[in-house]
Amino acid sequence: MKPIDFWYSIGSTYTYLTVMRLPEYAKANDIAFNWRPFNVRDIMIEQNNIPFKDKPVKSAYMWRDIARRAEMYGMAASLPAPYPLKELALANQIALVGRNEGWVQDYTVETYRLWFVDGLPAGSDPNVSESLRRIGQDPERVLDRAQSPEIVNGLAADTDLARDLGVFGSPTFVVEGEVFWGDDRLDDAVSWSRRGRVVGG
Amino acid sequence: MKPIDFWYSIGSTYTYLTVMRLPEYAKANDIAFNWRPFNVRDIMIEQNNIPFKDKPVKSAYMWRDIARRAEMYGMAASLPAPYPLKELALANQIALVGRNEGWVQDYTVETYRLWFVDGLPAGSDPNVSESLRRIGQDPERVLDRAQSPEIVNGLAADTDLARDLGVFGSPTFVVEGEVFWGDDRLDDAVSWSRRGRVVGG
Repeated sequence: MKPIDFWYSIGSTYTYLTVMRLPEYAKANDIAFNWRPFNVRDIMIEQNNIPFKDKPVKSAYMWRDIARRAEMYGMAASLPAPYPLKELALANQIALVGRNEGWVQDYTVETYRLWFVDGLPAGSDPNVSESLRRIGQDPERVLDRAQSPEIVNGLAADTDLARDLGVFGSPTFVVEGEVFWGDDRLDDAVSWSRRGRVVGG
Repeated sequence: MKPIDFWYSIGSTYTYLTVMRLPEYAKANDIAFNWRPFNVRDIMIEQNNIPFKDKPVKSAYMWRDIARRAEMYGMAASLPAPYPLKELALANQIALVGRNEGWVQDYTVETYRLWFVDGLPAGSDPNVSESLRRIGQDPERVLDRAQSPEIVNGLAADTDLARDLGVFGSPTFVVEGEVFWGDDRLDDAVSWSRRGRVVGG
């Protein structure tokens, strides 16, 4: 079975639920995911898709819903986490370096853990340096590379690709052109990959 | 176990998935739902929560997602259905008459079926007359009552109550003050009702 493309932005709140369970989920279901960071904020601004800003009732619900489901999944979480991220682009540029170098999954898990458990915003220090150190990467070297034109342009190109595929939010799973948006649709995406349709649990 | 409050507006698209499966789900899980129509549009406009208008990519995804899940649930659907409804308020005023008279569930199922399967917008004729006739109600009598000050004010009062509970979208399940938004959260609401926490399937 081909890997499922997992499009995500560090900066998305619900993406926490997916990032923290995906490594184990992949093993348990014997399915590979292709971790593809992009800049969801650019796409959402373009499409006037502003789910939480100036929406206090919906925002409060979002945190409560994530807390309940984090508990269901057995994940630690200290909520609400700092939001929105000031350095969303940089957080995902670092992830793209990781994708090119083979440590994107480990970095993404660690930076989300520091953000959602320890309250340190992803994309800014001390989160960036600490998450990179934890996975054995040199922060100075990675930050240099993450801000290079190659990576800045690379993230923009990947964001263009995501947009062309119909991705408008994070997390999104894409299986043979079918788009599945949200942590809630992980099972649907896997079902589509296996059977070409969505089958209930 | 106390019934779970099921707050909904005829006019919401995802609510189709809940309305069509809830009667059977309630029996299968031996749990009662208290069907409570309200005017979600008023609350969404107040809260500047505009999920689909002028958002073609997200709208196209919404219909595709509903189609996939309707198929998963074994529901017929001819999509996209006419949207948005011109007569959302009236559709839910009729539902409130049905709530007072004991036929709210049957009417809601029939009006959604005519809307999502036969392409006839809820709240307008021929949908209104046909759905009422199918459940043995006289359209002229019901329409008179649905437009009476008692019912118009009653729907506004129920909408105020929903807002006070933290309801911001449809469908929403409320269990002892806990709010669960979306067809995707039906199991979570039942879990909360039974165990006071969300337990995975």
